Amino acid sequence: MKKGNTIFFKNTPRILSYAAICGSKEKEGVLGQYADITLQDDMYEESTYEKAECKMLSTAISLALNKSGLEEKGVDVLLSGDLLNQIISASFAARDFTFPFLGLYSACSTMSESILLGATLVDGGYANAAVCATGSHFASAERQYRYPLELGCTRPPQAQWTVTGAGGLVIGKADKGIKIVNGTMGRVCDFGVTDVNNMGAAMAPAAADTIMRHFEDTGTSPEDYDLILTGDLGALGSRILKDLTWEKGFDISANHVDCGEIIYKVIESEFQGGSGAGCSATVLNSYILTKMDAGLYKRILFAATGALLSTVSSGQGESIPCISHAVQLEV
Amino acid sequence: MKKGNTIFFKNTPRILSYAAICGSKEKEGVLGQYADITLQDDMYEESTYEKAECKMLSTAISLALNKSGLEEKGVDVLLSGDLLNQIISASFAARDFTFPFLGLYSACSTMSESILLGATLVDGGYANAAVCATGSHFASAERQYRYPLELGCTRPPQAQWTVTGAGGLVIGKADKGIKIVNGTMGRVCDFGVTDVNNMGAAMAPAAADTIMRHFEDTGTSPEDYDLILTGDLGALGSRILKDLTWEKGFDISANHVDCGEIIYKVIESEFQGGSGAGCSATVLNSYILTKMDAGLYKRILFAATGALLSTVSSGQGESIPCISHAVQLEV
Repeated sequence: MKKGNTIFFKNTPRILSYAAICGSKEKEGVLGQYADITLQDDMYEESTYEKAECKMLSTAISLALNKSGLEEKGVDVLLSGDLLNQIISASFAARDFTFPFLGLYSACSTMSESILLGATLVDGGYANAAVCATGSHFASAERQYRYPLELGCTRPPQAQWTVTGAGGLVIGKADKGIKIVNGTMGRVCDFGVTDVNNMGAAMAPAAADTIMRHFEDTGTSPEDYDLILTGDLGALGSRILKDLTWEKGFDISANHVDCGEIIYKVIESEFQGGSGAGCSATVLNSYILTKMDAGLYKRILFAATGALLSTVSSGQGESIPCISHAVQLEV
Repeated sequence: MKKGNTIFFKNTPRILSYAAICGSKEKEGVLGQYADITLQDDMYEESTYEKAECKMLSTAISLALNKSGLEEKGVDVLLSGDLLNQIISASFAARDFTFPFLGLYSACSTMSESILLGATLVDGGYANAAVCATGSHFASAERQYRYPLELGCTRPPQAQWTVTGAGGLVIGKADKGIKIVNGTMGRVCDFGVTDVNNMGAAMAPAAADTIMRHFEDTGTSPEDYDLILTGDLGALGSRILKDLTWEKGFDISANHVDCGEIIYKVIESEFQGGSGAGCSATVLNSYILTKMDAGLYKRILFAATGALLSTVSSGQGESIPCISHAVQLEV
């Protein structure tokens, strides 16, 4: 059931359904065509950014649930977290549902951590159905992690843009649907990066560590995957990841794609792409899984990355510890 | 393997070892005799409260690991979280170890959430050994959630005192040791309490909900337990819990004890007792498990509770959603 840091699922947990909702800026990119709901106004009829973020997450959960055909009583647990202090989006979204809630925090790798744990619970017979979801909001993240939006601060070239959006999926047992084959648990990696605007550089070593351990534990190599999908490394972080893995003998350049790099129409001189827990959550739960269902991708490795810093840790001069959890999905 | 919201463990995951470390104020109470390390100075030779909190957590993990006889490579995963924004104590403590890390957030119910998930991973054969740990620090919590210590604000009578301390345990398979029999997952409960100084009143309904569902799912009743242990309801919250369960036909008054109520020598007119993720973590991983090992308690239900608020949610007028996860332990 387990080799190295990878958990193998013998009883074929499957993705029963998935859904995504995104903001107005995200709509202009690939999500415009694939997300279930695209917002005209990122306030989503709420009075604060935080409440809008929570409502998006709750909506994504409801949408995924409805598509699965399950009722609330058929769901055993919600696995969720988000970027806000004390994961209030997830906790308050969980209030809208009657099933139990296990709160997670893994920054922008929450989507893959929740799938890994959800698949484990279903595989082991501890749950019949588990909902995994996360999201983020540009405006709530900016004011929590960086500066008040009203200041209009200039963004440095290595910066990324926190995605406004949420995505969720339901894991259960079924005869058809995308299979969750295994999951590789991440270790905390810290290469000493202290620039809080350069998340890609901070997180790339964690992605490289997990992806290479995944190859080792599963006996696979890059060409076995139609897609090696990271969460929000951005353009610069993706290059670093390719370099780090290439140095160790794994050439992932042919099939590596980063959700943050494809979510916007990135002009590299402008910024590095999307970030945030909602970045990989929206791209995976709309574009990617739709393409898998259509048979375009047969086997993907989804390795979202998270930067485990806070404004306090950075203010105290700490570097940025990062993590990446990976799950292998197959049609 | 599962009934209602309760997961039953068929392969008898056990607590291989446990350890706790506490601060100078906590030393004056029951922990003085039972904790592995008691600090003279709550700064723990660090330059900030947050670094001291992280060091306590890392120390608790190391101590528990050493007692288990396992080396780092024998551990499959660390399940941990804490109260600080972005769970920096847990994330930075995880940097000290080579095994994978799954970050959790469940406020003061992190200890029971981590045991529930850790036991599930071991029971299902997904991990040979899992370390579960959490902690808190009075000074870092005060300045994050309330006021700068230097202000010397008066505390209202319903307030509790965040425990300075950390506790951890190792779950694995063995022929002896305390058994983890089952675990009941918590649901988010919100009774509309908005007073952020009255955590006991906010959390009591969540504890009542989980404890009563546990009785229902397992077919047990209060008298089947030597101890029904909550985490940090405090004196007032404990009374509310007893009332809420009594109203539904469960009289837990004879064997209910709250870690927050026993950790200090509480004079009720002064304050309501201890709180924080470190409260139940230190009391469980020293006093309680030692007494279980000695045969004083044969069967306990450990139901830690968490208040899932943030300063932002409270500032925006939201009430306090709460949760409680429970695990049943037996000698």
